Amino acid sequence: MDIMEKALQAHRAWHGKLDIRSRVRIDNRDALSTAYTPGVAQPCLEIQKDPALSYELTGRQNLVAVITDGTAVLGLGDIGPLAAMPVMEGKCALFIEFGGVNAIPLCVSTKDPDEFCETVARIAGSFGGINLEDISAPRCFEIEKKLKTMVDIPVFHDDQHGTAVVASAAIINAAKLAGKQLSELKTVINGAGAAGVAIANMLLSIGVKDITMLNSKGIVCEGDKLSSEALTELSKRTNLAHRHGGLADAMQGADVFIGVSKPGLVTPEMVKSMNEKPFIFAMANPTPEIMPDLAKEAGAFVVGTGRSDFPNQINNVLAFPGIFKGALAVRASDITEGMKRAAAIALAESVSDADLSPACVIPNPFDATVAERVAKAVSRAAFEDGVARLSVCTD
Amino acid sequence: MDIMEKALQAHRAWHGKLDIRSRVRIDNRDALSTAYTPGVAQPCLEIQKDPALSYELTGRQNLVAVITDGTAVLGLGDIGPLAAMPVMEGKCALFIEFGGVNAIPLCVSTKDPDEFCETVARIAGSFGGINLEDISAPRCFEIEKKLKTMVDIPVFHDDQHGTAVVASAAIINAAKLAGKQLSELKTVINGAGAAGVAIANMLLSIGVKDITMLNSKGIVCEGDKLSSEALTELSKRTNLAHRHGGLADAMQGADVFIGVSKPGLVTPEMVKSMNEKPFIFAMANPTPEIMPDLAKEAGAFVVGTGRSDFPNQINNVLAFPGIFKGALAVRASDITEGMKRAAAIALAESVSDADLSPACVIPNPFDATVAERVAKAVSRAAFEDGVARLSVCTD
Repeated sequence: MDIMEKALQAHRAWHGKLDIRSRVRIDNRDALSTAYTPGVAQPCLEIQKDPALSYELTGRQNLVAVITDGTAVLGLGDIGPLAAMPVMEGKCALFIEFGGVNAIPLCVSTKDPDEFCETVARIAGSFGGINLEDISAPRCFEIEKKLKTMVDIPVFHDDQHGTAVVASAAIINAAKLAGKQLSELKTVINGAGAAGVAIANMLLSIGVKDITMLNSKGIVCEGDKLSSEALTELSKRTNLAHRHGGLADAMQGADVFIGVSKPGLVTPEMVKSMNEKPFIFAMANPTPEIMPDLAKEAGAFVVGTGRSDFPNQINNVLAFPGIFKGALAVRASDITEGMKRAAAIALAESVSDADLSPACVIPNPFDATVAERVAKAVSRAAFEDGVARLSVCTD
Repeated sequence: MDIMEKALQAHRAWHGKLDIRSRVRIDNRDALSTAYTPGVAQPCLEIQKDPALSYELTGRQNLVAVITDGTAVLGLGDIGPLAAMPVMEGKCALFIEFGGVNAIPLCVSTKDPDEFCETVARIAGSFGGINLEDISAPRCFEIEKKLKTMVDIPVFHDDQHGTAVVASAAIINAAKLAGKQLSELKTVINGAGAAGVAIANMLLSIGVKDITMLNSKGIVCEGDKLSSEALTELSKRTNLAHRHGGLADAMQGADVFIGVSKPGLVTPEMVKSMNEKPFIFAMANPTPEIMPDLAKEAGAFVVGTGRSDFPNQINNVLAFPGIFKGALAVRASDITEGMKRAAAIALAESVSDADLSPACVIPNPFDATVAERVAKAVSRAAFEDGVARLSVCTD
């Protein structure tokens, strides 16, 4: 039985992947009076006096909402809010299993970015953080930017930043192995949607200077008519030489190829045209831009994909559980660039020197120590960036 | 230590009363591929083809959202959405513990009924039902009525209907014990807010004909300028004799007093002026309209309150877990008058003939068999009323 049919049958049996449990057994009058009326009035009154106590006296201090509008679900596109829910539930399960962070799935039935933001902002007091998921570009840029100004809790579009954090960690380690400086890496990003834009921004943030983005028309150049404000902004900070051309042109002499595009776009010749010890991160799903064995044969030094059956899987589950765990631990009001950068560095450092090799530049997704390491680094960065609202010892 | 201080300390220790659990252990690649990508795409595609499958393939089939705007929390009034959350979490815990129904707490930070409805309607696809909670009157009437037209899942304002169902069950049994017919009961309801209006409507629905409502100005009469459309409608079906006066006037010769008002308003003399074998349900919290011992001394046949330390506690927990359990079991699109009536009758019948006595007209809140009995009756009524979307055997 193939994985799709197996997953369908499993979902039929599960009837939902999440259960809500009460931490309190309510089987006698005393328990009822403590967890509910009349006793519950007291924590209510305390929060009324000091709203910050909602973090002490309710579950929001460890609760993330995973929210979608169903417009860009996996590679399936705009399948609608209801149909997106199995993914949201799965994401919540990953938050719980990998980060010990409670998470609830919500779908919003509007495609209007303003209505979406308004809806989420009105219920934001119920949570400690908001993980946006599977929202189509360029709407996702607008939604995240606007929502961040409307709420005082972290907002994080994982399809952008989760991918960016993990890819950045892989590149940090690949550069270390290859003896290259981040500031000297010539980097090509093929795909200028949500993930591509976020990866470019993240790489600039960790010190990469030479980035060339490509969209479906070829190399992105400042002054082009582009699909999003986010990409327009980015076009001013990338391709500083104002080159034009296609993928083959861009890859000549490059150190890094990052694909968030379509299967099979990269040929062995393109890889051969790159600088020495090139890195290939071919993350198109389910089939990469170039298969790892072909890339290796053509001279790639490090190869990563989005797939679990090849080495160096760029899997967001390495990032989002720890990022939210760290943000929630200090009651962060935001997830800043510094916190994402700290997550990428901590993730890179999670690979020990003994393990570090071209086939292992990123931890295994099931490494149970990763989320905690990422969380501590993110908490620390939240303090440094002034968005932490709670002092805790993070070391 | 008093219960308020004890509850506060307990809430400090709990840091939230709910936990979300994954039903799936995700500790290897196979589990990840089944619960998440790539396998999860298959249930998504199935729901896209047939949205009704969201009940098969996600958790909404057993999930209720407990939603407030924080405007009428317990007896505390408008303490705001954040401060209401300990109550919402407690309510969710009761859904889970008493009904086996998953429930998540949400607060909405708007006092505008239209914005509230719009917000809840946009996220309604995430749940199988909506329990409105602690919303002030008369806004609660408008919100419930409007929201019911906007979503295709049950909407139930528990402060109205939960109380009405439990009070009605108690009156059914009290009448049985006293040998009185429901259609002959002269009934006085003191308090014309959310609970009072709902109790009146429910009693009319189970066959009570003679009801006199009182608000803070006295007996409510058709033509009075009243606080809500709901009460105006009700004024046409109550006090058919168009009497005027105060509480003492209304209680003369009455069979039933129902108080959802203020402590101490009922005197022994008023009880003595009632018909023989009168019932007193004095539900003001924390102090009843008349204390049970005083009412008994004055000749009351059955006395009930909202308190757990006296007999016949009118506790909503006897109703809402079973009502939603029954509605969700058949994927009801609504909770109808018939379903609420069925719940009241099932609740009344949950007291065995052997147990039935003036001190026991309603089950103990911790009777674990009640929710299931109520649920079965509610499922059956959903079929009869044509709002069930799933055929299951309910007997």
